[in-house]
Amino acid sequence: MKRYLDSNWKDSMRIRVDVNNMMSDAVGARGLSIEEINSLPISGAVAAMHSKREQMKWRELPHNQEEIVAKIEECAKHIQEDFDSFVVLGIGGSALGPIAVHQALSHPKYNELPSFMRKTPKLYVEDNIDPERMEALLDVIDVERTMFNVVTKSGGTSETMSQLLIVTDLLHRELGDDISTNLIATTDKEKGNLVKIAKIENLTTFIVPDGVGGRFSELCPVGLLAAAVCGIDIRELLFGAAYMDEICSNDDVWENPAYILASMQVASMKKGCNIHVMMPYADSLKYISDWYAQLWAESLGKHYDNNGKEIYAGQTPVKALGVTDQHSQVQLYTEGPFDKVITFIGVDQYRTETTIPDGYLDIKDVSFLCGHTQNELIKAEQSATAYAVMKSGHLSNTITLPKVNAFTIGQLLYMFEVMTAFAGELLGLNTFDQPGVEEGKNATYALLGKPGYDQKRMELESAPKAKDEYII
Amino acid sequence: MKRYLDSNWKDSMRIRVDVNNMMSDAVGARGLSIEEINSLPISGAVAAMHSKREQMKWRELPHNQEEIVAKIEECAKHIQEDFDSFVVLGIGGSALGPIAVHQALSHPKYNELPSFMRKTPKLYVEDNIDPERMEALLDVIDVERTMFNVVTKSGGTSETMSQLLIVTDLLHRELGDDISTNLIATTDKEKGNLVKIAKIENLTTFIVPDGVGGRFSELCPVGLLAAAVCGIDIRELLFGAAYMDEICSNDDVWENPAYILASMQVASMKKGCNIHVMMPYADSLKYISDWYAQLWAESLGKHYDNNGKEIYAGQTPVKALGVTDQHSQVQLYTEGPFDKVITFIGVDQYRTETTIPDGYLDIKDVSFLCGHTQNELIKAEQSATAYAVMKSGHLSNTITLPKVNAFTIGQLLYMFEVMTAFAGELLGLNTFDQPGVEEGKNATYALLGKPGYDQKRMELESAPKAKDEYII
Repeated sequence: MKRYLDSNWKDSMRIRVDVNNMMSDAVGARGLSIEEINSLPISGAVAAMHSKREQMKWRELPHNQEEIVAKIEECAKHIQEDFDSFVVLGIGGSALGPIAVHQALSHPKYNELPSFMRKTPKLYVEDNIDPERMEALLDVIDVERTMFNVVTKSGGTSETMSQLLIVTDLLHRELGDDISTNLIATTDKEKGNLVKIAKIENLTTFIVPDGVGGRFSELCPVGLLAAAVCGIDIRELLFGAAYMDEICSNDDVWENPAYILASMQVASMKKGCNIHVMMPYADSLKYISDWYAQLWAESLGKHYDNNGKEIYAGQTPVKALGVTDQHSQVQLYTEGPFDKVITFIGVDQYRTETTIPDGYLDIKDVSFLCGHTQNELIKAEQSATAYAVMKSGHLSNTITLPKVNAFTIGQLLYMFEVMTAFAGELLGLNTFDQPGVEEGKNATYALLGKPGYDQKRMELESAPKAKDEYII
Repeated sequence: MKRYLDSNWKDSMRIRVDVNNMMSDAVGARGLSIEEINSLPISGAVAAMHSKREQMKWRELPHNQEEIVAKIEECAKHIQEDFDSFVVLGIGGSALGPIAVHQALSHPKYNELPSFMRKTPKLYVEDNIDPERMEALLDVIDVERTMFNVVTKSGGTSETMSQLLIVTDLLHRELGDDISTNLIATTDKEKGNLVKIAKIENLTTFIVPDGVGGRFSELCPVGLLAAAVCGIDIRELLFGAAYMDEICSNDDVWENPAYILASMQVASMKKGCNIHVMMPYADSLKYISDWYAQLWAESLGKHYDNNGKEIYAGQTPVKALGVTDQHSQVQLYTEGPFDKVITFIGVDQYRTETTIPDGYLDIKDVSFLCGHTQNELIKAEQSATAYAVMKSGHLSNTITLPKVNAFTIGQLLYMFEVMTAFAGELLGLNTFDQPGVEEGKNATYALLGKPGYDQKRMELESAPKAKDEYII
């Protein structure tokens, strides 16, 4: 039996959220009170999570993909057998999820492993258009032995399309007319440019379901294909998300980890915490912070609320890594302004244990380490940092994964998604749009001379010129 | 003649700072005025930069290392000839500089290149104690063919010392008594545990000069050895820093790029900008943001000013990457609160040019890209994003590197260091200490049972217990 079907195992893998150090009981005057939480518009938000569930199509992804998962697994098996590298062409939500899950669940030096150890194809997620990057990629892959996966829901993402043009040109030169052997499309069911190109090139195509926006798309084919290619158990990932969905079905905010985290972030925002630091104590979870940063920033960074009132909402996510950033950011976190909440992410049981051997026993500043494990050291440092942050009167909370595996990562991603949606309801804004990126897109089109953007180009040209005295 | 000795070349490589979009002329009411800048305690800060120059030993690093550079180059040559991998054991300032410079100036996929293309040893900077990480490292290196460089000024950094114990044990088991062939120490001249261990093991040792703190140490042997091993021209790096020192000798804040950046950050902090986003538009500069984040956060995040007054100072650095984070963070930057300054870092000339070839010419949302280069696209997106941020009334500035090379990177690092020191003077605090990290260190010692920390252990044990109802 698959372990994720065993309810005892599942419960032993339930992730825990500890919000003690958010409360004034622990941190003193600047902490939150129960009254502050209860004064939020919680019942309305809870009701909205029910009434809007239908529209939030990402909520069903753990439950409605049986068929697609089988198709993804089959496709992944073929890629594993016939290809050395798998390259994702995508940006934003099409890249951050695949990177985060891969980093969490694959070998930390995956691409550098000899192939007999790695067994599955190398993974590259190309989420920038720096010209130096595409050239560098071509230095390390053999194009004929590489499967490309272009991922864009709209098919209108300039960055991804520019990469696709480069790659299709390359593939046509290497392979001739039929490039469908080395290119897979992941896009909307019927709309957009990538659908058209997929038809022209006869590509295998995976669908980004309707109503699943980029930053909520990791648990659909956008993320699942890359994960499966790397040998990650995507069924376990989805079962983890389904388990969290069950946990998050509790309407009592004090019993629902996603709701309580959201409520406390919103309450802290009202008290001047405009920064949310995400600080995992595990290299494997480093890119979960990047994925979360998009989710939180794009969802809640909004000019207007649902009533059209100007609110300029948003809490800025900050990515940190324990213990590394203790030597970079913790000075600021403990002594600086009371403007942030820090979320520590800990792990009960790392996937290995490294003992610190004896040595230099007469140097006492070194020898106290001997006989301990790095596991004990990293956990002691996490506890010590949480203690120092609490003692300095700054707010923090701690999420703990019993282990890092597909089941707990599925839980974690889904919990953050529900948390974000709930925070959006508490703030009364549209969690799922991103109107603020249009201005920059349109200005880019104008600068590149895209037809139809003459007026924007004129606007740019008539903008006040930079003053020389302000260029140093 | 080396190009960095040619003054025309040097001037053509001068980095530019454009602060137009910080000013109310450009961004409207929330921008800065000349009066706000001039009302800062600038003359005192300028005077302090002169009177304290003697103490700021890092300021002389571009000028006083002729001898040590020759020694580093010789050592690097030996490592290049006899080793496959170079592993830095260090954390914080001992790691962030080496990572940033390597990423800026080496091939983007350096470690993955076949050795005939890479030519120099692989580089690993191990700046965390995650137990999974050390094990993973050992999967990809051949210990006998690896040179380790342990870097800690104090010799008291628990993380680095735990790594050293693991590595010396391993080396002794593989090599026998003499491990000096595969281990180099970089530490204080005479104080600390690493000096003692270096004597016991008879190690080649490089010195971290007195008065050069971790976050200001990249341009001393801490950073230079790793850079030289990777084939980076460290003389050019230092000449770039020296050139910036010359530029920063101008006492007129409006003519000094470091001073004007610092002044504007401090002025913006007074107006509620507690966040500083560093957003390079080049993959190669991504880790410059990490290095800067330590420099800015640890230097200015301070509870007390120089008069012992409680100030809880500090601006939180945020790392972003253009264009990638346009699809993650720019929604928040344009529509969210007026709480941040964004520094864009651009590049005039990337080290390669990638043309976007023709394809799918009848799909107009794709074909407008054809014939452009990715260079044009990334620059257009940078300009467009700066425009959108300005238009939304948020503050930004832009630093431009004519090219990314050792000379411009030397300038950039040194400019940020001077900027940070000047900001510390404007804020009237001690830029060079980090008292806030002691609490966490001591709590770690107590948790691990280090002798002498019984009282701290009792303090931890008597802390209020976490309440079950706050664990969900």
